[in-house]
Amino acid sequence: MSNIEEIIDQLVEFRDDRNWEQFHNTKDLSLAISIEAAELNELFLWKTIEECEEVDKEKIKDELADIFAFAFLLANKHGFDVKEIVSDKVKKNGLKYPVEKSRNSATKYTDL
Amino acid sequence: MSNIEEIIDQLVEFRDDRNWEQFHNTKDLSLAISIEAAELNELFLWKTIEECEEVDKEKIKDELADIFAFAFLLANKHGFDVKEIVSDKVKKNGLKYPVEKSRNSATKYTDL
Amino acid sequence: MSNIEEIIDQLVEFRDDRNWEQFHNTKDLSLAISIEAAELNELFLWKTIEECEEVDKEKIKDELADIFAFAFLLANKHGFDVKEIVSDKVKKNGLKYPVEKSRNSATKYTDL
Amino acid sequence: MSNIEEIIDQLVEFRDDRNWEQFHNTKDLSLAISIEAAELNELFLWKTIEECEEVDKEKIKDELADIFAFAFLLANKHGFDVKEIVSDKVKKNGLKYPVEKSRNSATKYTDL
Repeated sequence: MSNIEEIIDQLVEFRDDRNWEQFHNTKDLSLAISIEAAELNELFLWKTIEECEEVDKEKIKDELADIFAFAFLLANKHGFDVKEIVSDKVKKNGLKYPVEKSRNSATKYTDL
Repeated sequence: MSNIEEIIDQLVEFRDDRNWEQFHNTKDLSLAISIEAAELNELFLWKTIEECEEVDKEKIKDELADIFAFAFLLANKHGFDVKEIVSDKVKKNGLKYPVEKSRNSATKYTDL
Repeated sequence: MSNIEEIIDQLVEFRDDRNWEQFHNTKDLSLAISIEAAELNELFLWKTIEECEEVDKEKIKDELADIFAFAFLLANKHGFDVKEIVSDKVKKNGLKYPVEKSRNSATKYTDL
Repeated sequence: MSNIEEIIDQLVEFRDDRNWEQFHNTKDLSLAISIEAAELNELFLWKTIEECEEVDKEKIKDELADIFAFAFLLANKHGFDVKEIVSDKVKKNGLKYPVEKSRNSATKYTDL
């Protein structure tokens, strides 16, 4: 069993122990990811880039774990292979951001 | 090498080919996750729960992959083991959401 | 004095009493809006459309007020006239969403 | 008629011309605000605080106007008086952030 499968198994067990699959429709799982992402952002609000690097790592872990949890549950709901979808997206992004054009640049591909 | 390590290796290679680590501070990586999460949400805006289940899976994969990409890059930046942080959070959530109290309930732990 | 100017005056007074303008750069004000928007979303997470209409109005007011507060402060920082920018956007959207094409449809203009 | 009422009238007319009230339930209006807030954030992604102050003001206006539009529509849906809810929140925040404790500090009230 891969470590992603192990993570998902643990999340599914937690979910099923509470009979929560009934709430985990696609729209609300997506919404949950965005809410957790905002909680992660809140750790960095009003802080400089440098101050953000000093934020308590345990708090970052906690919020990032929540994002991963809902993201894995959404992937699992639709039978997506996480490695495959990320790998496919990296390839797509390679076309949108050719090395020579995008090197050292944070410009969005639509403006390259 | 675990499949999570393989995903991260691919993301880091993509990043380093473009010399983008300079942009990947903690605050902006977190912001990037939230922006991608909003793009995922946008697929479901103004749609019923049922309509959301019919949304083009390729679009969901694309947006979810972006969320995973920045989340893995943030985890990697801080040396977090993704399986460990999710597992730790599941344990914490087990205390906040005891099975008997939270079964069949979507109530937040603060209101349980 | 218009009621929008009155709102902004009150917000600016609150801010200046605490000497908080130093934190209110454009990037963080924008981030603050999105964090407050996520807190508003959280009131509706895992709830059906119908259940959301029953959510405590005082909680909605509280979160919506935070969104307005940071949005007004950002508008004020850049000297934007709120009525003018909304009115300009309504006109732009009128071109993107012609009545005959968009009537009864939630389709994004890019797909019309 | 106040200028807020004028803004809302314009937004309601635009909505009703397209018969879009059917889509404007509370949950999706809230979601729409957060999506627009993320589009505003995207203007500032990977940019320093200083670079963000140089972002094209027309783009900021466009995204901020969208946030205001959905926020006013949500307020209007529930019959909220925008000036009143912001004013009430300023008073509440005055208690959470007493001047002497919060002056020059970006610390969240829960940590003051």
